Amino acid sequence: MPNSQREAPIQLNHIALVVEDLQGALAFWRDGLGLTVEGEIQSVPEEAVAIVKIAVGDSHIELISPSTAGSGVAKYLAKRGPGLHHICLEVADLNAKLRQLQALGCELINETPRERAGWRYAFIHPKSSGGCLLELYERL
Amino acid sequence: MPNSQREAPIQLNHIALVVEDLQGALAFWRDGLGLTVEGEIQSVPEEAVAIVKIAVGDSHIELISPSTAGSGVAKYLAKRGPGLHHICLEVADLNAKLRQLQALGCELINETPRERAGWRYAFIHPKSSGGCLLELYERL
Repeated sequence: MPNSQREAPIQLNHIALVVEDLQGALAFWRDGLGLTVEGEIQSVPEEAVAIVKIAVGDSHIELISPSTAGSGVAKYLAKRGPGLHHICLEVADLNAKLRQLQALGCELINETPRERAGWRYAFIHPKSSGGCLLELYERL
Repeated sequence: MPNSQREAPIQLNHIALVVEDLQGALAFWRDGLGLTVEGEIQSVPEEAVAIVKIAVGDSHIELISPSTAGSGVAKYLAKRGPGLHHICLEVADLNAKLRQLQALGCELINETPRERAGWRYAFIHPKSSGGCLLELYERL
């Protein structure tokens, strides 16, 4: 592509860590390491989780804990235990990246990006990345 | 502490992903996403692994695969499957951080940092961080 259309570099947006005890984990990252909490604990009712963001450089660690026993994250915790859940990369053109990955035979969890106010995102299956659930994220 | 001694902010150094197929994973991150590989694939005989670094912003994703069947990483793969293994944060004063974490009752895998040429590091047990194996790293 011409230089004028060269895309912005990919950035790490966040690393998601599924935890059982949000306050306990928060104490480690904030009080133990001295990192800064971004905002308050957020409740995300549509995913039945509570989330808190810990700033690290230009990206953040997202601590996620289930708010109901039947949620997807609660099932993940029951099956896998707490741990690193996914990483999220910010890209300039999500649709182009998804087409490029499909051309290589990668398995997309969301072939069509999901949208929220101000951004869209899609997940890539761990079997394509080498084992890591990957979220690609584009600011609109 | 006085402002003149205020410590440098903690930075994300890398995210480590244990993979079975290094070339396949490399194809995903390099060819599929368009990320830049830093240097060559490195063999680390003392840990019986091969490592390749993928640059993302100011940090990197480290793809790690076992080079012998009996290595620690091979055992991890056999037990847990491929996936996110640990994250590494760069700190200004590793010993001070370790003392601070111990004062909070955290479990350190390395109570005394290990040293290599130019840097030292210590691992913190996942049970203290909320579920994530954490490496703390200090440049010397």
